[in-house]
Amino acid sequence: MKTAIKDPYVSRTDRNAAIIARQDPVVYGGGRYAAALDETRLADYERDGFLLIEGLFSGQEVAALLREVQRMSADPAIAASEEAVTEPGSDAVRSIFRVHELSAALGALARDPRLIDVARQILGSEVYMHQSRANMKPGFKGKEFYWHSDFETWHVEDGMPGMRAISCSLLLTDNNACNGPLMLVPGSHMQFISCKGKTPERHYEQSLKKQEYGVPDPVSLRLLAEQGGIKAMEAAAGSVIFFDCNTMHGSNGNISPWPRANVFMVYNSVENALQPPKYGLSPRPEHIATRGSFEPLVPLEAPAYA
Amino acid sequence: MKTAIKDPYVSRTDRNAAIIARQDPVVYGGGRYAAALDETRLADYERDGFLLIEGLFSGQEVAALLREVQRMSADPAIAASEEAVTEPGSDAVRSIFRVHELSAALGALARDPRLIDVARQILGSEVYMHQSRANMKPGFKGKEFYWHSDFETWHVEDGMPGMRAISCSLLLTDNNACNGPLMLVPGSHMQFISCKGKTPERHYEQSLKKQEYGVPDPVSLRLLAEQGGIKAMEAAAGSVIFFDCNTMHGSNGNISPWPRANVFMVYNSVENALQPPKYGLSPRPEHIATRGSFEPLVPLEAPAYA
Repeated sequence: MKTAIKDPYVSRTDRNAAIIARQDPVVYGGGRYAAALDETRLADYERDGFLLIEGLFSGQEVAALLREVQRMSADPAIAASEEAVTEPGSDAVRSIFRVHELSAALGALARDPRLIDVARQILGSEVYMHQSRANMKPGFKGKEFYWHSDFETWHVEDGMPGMRAISCSLLLTDNNACNGPLMLVPGSHMQFISCKGKTPERHYEQSLKKQEYGVPDPVSLRLLAEQGGIKAMEAAAGSVIFFDCNTMHGSNGNISPWPRANVFMVYNSVENALQPPKYGLSPRPEHIATRGSFEPLVPLEAPAYA
Repeated sequence: MKTAIKDPYVSRTDRNAAIIARQDPVVYGGGRYAAALDETRLADYERDGFLLIEGLFSGQEVAALLREVQRMSADPAIAASEEAVTEPGSDAVRSIFRVHELSAALGALARDPRLIDVARQILGSEVYMHQSRANMKPGFKGKEFYWHSDFETWHVEDGMPGMRAISCSLLLTDNNACNGPLMLVPGSHMQFISCKGKTPERHYEQSLKKQEYGVPDPVSLRLLAEQGGIKAMEAAAGSVIFFDCNTMHGSNGNISPWPRANVFMVYNSVENALQPPKYGLSPRPEHIATRGSFEPLVPLEAPAYA
């Protein structure tokens, strides 16, 4: 007799909002991979759901990568492509997706051992690139990114089975209290916030500008913040923030003159490859959620950027 | 032969944006008033255009004042009054004006020596209340206040002749990197940013929600921030920020669950009383810009809040 496997992370059904305990490990480990992080850092990541490593990339490397991202943002062909997302109410480029395939330099970053070795150590397996993007929160008019767990969206809209993915955000500009730094809720990765409301088809066309479904409710957010506080990740360019796919995060707008540019690389375990999306939704495009190939990424021995 | 006195602070004419050096003192002094601030603090204020004094009000006083402001925000009669301004796209109360006359407790705050004695010392004269307000930047959906110099608006729309007014912002909640703290540009009070564009009649009805005229241009803002940096005023409830009427300031939105509530008291020198607005504009309502009486405020000996 065949038994249907129950989805532990139900969201966007007719039910009300709910908080569901995480069923998956945070650190999969297993000792197969080089210890990119020492025990203390690994424990910090496991407890908080994120880890900041300052100065992981040099000023020269960051300058080269920032130039590359600026070049791409100014490229009319890229700005007009489906990979580019503009600010609400403006034609300023807010995000570019699939940057690791659009750019040789960012392709090298995707395979940089400083990122991928951390991902392999934590996820305890080979990894592939689920999604890559550059976020430019422009000065003066950068809008907020409201609170969300990436996993909630990836689970519902992309069919990612479990919590076995990690985001690496390399800061390309200084992130400070003035330009809308990434805010993370420590410990929130241990709770899955099931959201209310069904997802319309092609939701991603709007959600990348302004999320309307998969938005956590205020009561759950208040509870998470009361338990764990909120950490604003103020750090210099060259720092990297590693965070679990289920860590609640967001950022305020940016009226400062200083753009807030970051590159995100999202590694998923090859043992956590995508299945069909939930509720019969159509898969999102390849540049938002890789589905064409789950081949492991091979680390580069000596990536060069400058 | 009668000579027309030339306005040194021309703004919102057909001219382009421009930067004009301040013609007025910052600290008027004169020794007539008690030295509420010592020499060091006075020098800091004069150089930066602002001063933060932490813990000026006790936890008990702040709790009582916050309760009073919350009571007023929840009062349907006040929320429906012309003194209340709601968030763009929401009916959450964003600001209440004329609070020093709507509430006995806030009336006492207006005459608290910890505020008014600083104003008299710096402005070197008796002072009256040009404007008072409570700003509630609600959690989750608080929108930004874009960069502005208060003086630019008060000069053009209210006919305030010179730079001889001071704002005192009492923090009623902790202000941190997460909930859109007040941001000030050190040294910006020494430059008047003349803005482009004529002012429509009854501009204030929209400008208190979203400013469209009297908005400084990006080139000037970038220059000011390059010269002075930007200071995000992260401080605990009970702290007071004193700032010059011409100091460039703004704040980002607030997606955190924590409201950012402040009370502002704006003291103007009785020797700087309002004249008619510029360019034949009609005066703004009394609750936004006091014009009915410029009688000096008398400090209270022992204001009590709890």
